[in-house]
Amino acid sequence: MFDMQIKKKKLSKKQEKEGVKINKTPIKAVLSKNTVTTENSDQSRELYTQGRYGVILNNGKVQLSLIETAYLTEKGTIEVVFESKRKIDFEKLIKKATKLEPNFWTRYCVFKDIRNRGYIIKTALKFGADFRVYDRGVKPGEDHAKWIVYPVQEASALTWYEFSAKNRVAHSTKKKLLIAVLDAENDVTYWEIKWTRP
Amino acid sequence: MFDMQIKKKKLSKKQEKEGVKINKTPIKAVLSKNTVTTENSDQSRELYTQGRYGVILNNGKVQLSLIETAYLTEKGTIEVVFESKRKIDFEKLIKKATKLEPNFWTRYCVFKDIRNRGYIIKTALKFGADFRVYDRGVKPGEDHAKWIVYPVQEASALTWYEFSAKNRVAHSTKKKLLIAVLDAENDVTYWEIKWTRP
Amino acid sequence: MFDMQIKKKKLSKKQEKEGVKINKTPIKAVLSKNTVTTENSDQSRELYTQGRYGVILNNGKVQLSLIETAYLTEKGTIEVVFESKRKIDFEKLIKKATKLEPNFWTRYCVFKDIRNRGYIIKTALKFGADFRVYDRGVKPGEDHAKWIVYPVQEASALTWYEFSAKNRVAHSTKKKLLIAVLDAENDVTYWEIKWTRP
Amino acid sequence: MFDMQIKKKKLSKKQEKEGVKINKTPIKAVLSKNTVTTENSDQSRELYTQGRYGVILNNGKVQLSLIETAYLTEKGTIEVVFESKRKIDFEKLIKKATKLEPNFWTRYCVFKDIRNRGYIIKTALKFGADFRVYDRGVKPGEDHAKWIVYPVQEASALTWYEFSAKNRVAHSTKKKLLIAVLDAENDVTYWEIKWTRP
Repeated sequence: MFDMQIKKKKLSKKQEKEGVKINKTPIKAVLSKNTVTTENSDQSRELYTQGRYGVILNNGKVQLSLIETAYLTEKGTIEVVFESKRKIDFEKLIKKATKLEPNFWTRYCVFKDIRNRGYIIKTALKFGADFRVYDRGVKPGEDHAKWIVYPVQEASALTWYEFSAKNRVAHSTKKKLLIAVLDAENDVTYWEIKWTRP
Repeated sequence: MFDMQIKKKKLSKKQEKEGVKINKTPIKAVLSKNTVTTENSDQSRELYTQGRYGVILNNGKVQLSLIETAYLTEKGTIEVVFESKRKIDFEKLIKKATKLEPNFWTRYCVFKDIRNRGYIIKTALKFGADFRVYDRGVKPGEDHAKWIVYPVQEASALTWYEFSAKNRVAHSTKKKLLIAVLDAENDVTYWEIKWTRP
Repeated sequence: MFDMQIKKKKLSKKQEKEGVKINKTPIKAVLSKNTVTTENSDQSRELYTQGRYGVILNNGKVQLSLIETAYLTEKGTIEVVFESKRKIDFEKLIKKATKLEPNFWTRYCVFKDIRNRGYIIKTALKFGADFRVYDRGVKPGEDHAKWIVYPVQEASALTWYEFSAKNRVAHSTKKKLLIAVLDAENDVTYWEIKWTRP
Repeated sequence: MFDMQIKKKKLSKKQEKEGVKINKTPIKAVLSKNTVTTENSDQSRELYTQGRYGVILNNGKVQLSLIETAYLTEKGTIEVVFESKRKIDFEKLIKKATKLEPNFWTRYCVFKDIRNRGYIIKTALKFGADFRVYDRGVKPGEDHAKWIVYPVQEASALTWYEFSAKNRVAHSTKKKLLIAVLDAENDVTYWEIKWTRP
């Protein structure tokens, strides 16, 4: 019994880091128009309490963003269906999300890379940026996010206007800017930008 | 009969290397925003295993860059459609890619020329260059790339600081620097540059 | 009386550092094609020994770059004439320099801003950047430069390959990368960039 | 006596390399319009036989280019006068040459740097380039020049047209192209360019 408890503990740490539930039934979620809502269960609420995925609604369900949905589907943590109960696999999800959100695949690959490195990454739409990222081990609420993330594809152009604008967002919210460039081999290279007055 | 069989086999290898498929159906690929993904088949995966085009995704499909897509379309190796199944011919592809990626045509012409000469050419974003090129017969993983390549348009200007920077990048990544100059007739001229202390 | 004398001395040191000469005759310099050479005097050699402007030639004169010349002219430290002895004011100098050197105004504004902040800034052609900047109070020779600086115009575009290259140059020369963005009002904003693996 | 002989031998080797004659009277030379001609003596003809400066005329005098004249004047090897016998020092020479030849100072600094490194460097006007340089220990006539040299100033612009053109000159004369960039501190950085067909 003791062993099982320790094993469970280890699983929990791993799960906290990756959000992967091993040997557990995938959490059900429903895609309705552009919104994804999970079932009402302790397991689904752990998505938020452990990994800070989505937000917990008043009805006890968890609402997830399309990017979080895609990530958790790819990992096998959740299973998404239409309201009609028809299943949606990962590819269909990406296809749908790409129509709804600009630059979805690039943003998804960066989101995934950062999650896999053990960071909590959430939307930063209210700040005028793509994502905000918390330092390892930090949860939203405990402390402020450390970075604003700007995901781009290697062959895209950049003007210094945009670069300045992204930096101003970061600076005004007292965060550093992290440029995340997705290359043609789906690897992400990161550069941290700091406004400075020499 | 025996000779003819061996000859056919040799032709097939040559075709596979260059991306020319004789007597084979073009591989299907879908363009979604600026990502291109092939069908899920052994033939499509050979694009990667034989020619190192793109990357193989978890779902068994191959993701190609726009430049690789244009090249394989021009060769008749793949056939690209929109999500709506509407076909995209080579010219439409170039037109679309040019809107999405600055300097696309110059980069494409150089990519094509190097591929036609039998070299594997991939992104070099991590290093700070457009492309990295492996010596003939060498695949990524077997050995390091031999060159980094900067494709430029003959009419463009450059400062000596930028020229010096390209050399510094090559030197720090232990590769040779190749400048590929595209002229008005779409021909490419190559110059190998080496820092030297006479 | 004693206090006033000390205060005067301090002002002189400060002025010498910034290139402001109060109550001193401007140093004469001659513009010949695109080279500027000062008179042969102790005062002119102080430009180098105190402020590290230019280089001291074998004949005891100081050779200045066009950018340093423009800066010291604007400050009233030097007065430039043609070989014919005809005077050249600051505007004529800028006009002439702009014909000879691409990107002159952008580079000048950044150079001026960094000098005004009390740093020594010199060419970084060998490294592959426009300028190298030494930490406050540090002279070339005493220690290595702290930053390499790339001055850019806000409206100009850049590719991620070029961005990556600048970082590679900084990394390989063990310096920090400073991008100096000049806006339409001639103000400079600085961003320090650091490659990072989150 | 023995010691003096060895000392002299060492001096000769040094002199061969640099073309400096120590403890010998400077060779007289006359500037007439744009041409510089030395006195008629064995010592002056050594300029050619030892160091390949200039050309030996039918009358036994040596005709030097303005750049060679400036270099040998700066070294104290020759002393130049006008036809009127009025002396011309190094500075006056530079001033005069700058009016007569474009880009004189940049070309002079590069010429000087290459000579100081022990190479023979001559004009390459007939090839459409600035200079041709022979490998160390090689004299014109013994073997072909190794490089065509293209001297430029760090802040000047370059188009790939010009770069291509310079390279074509080198390639058609079976030489490599050496780009010599003079920076603001009068140091020269060299890059060797090789036309290549991958």
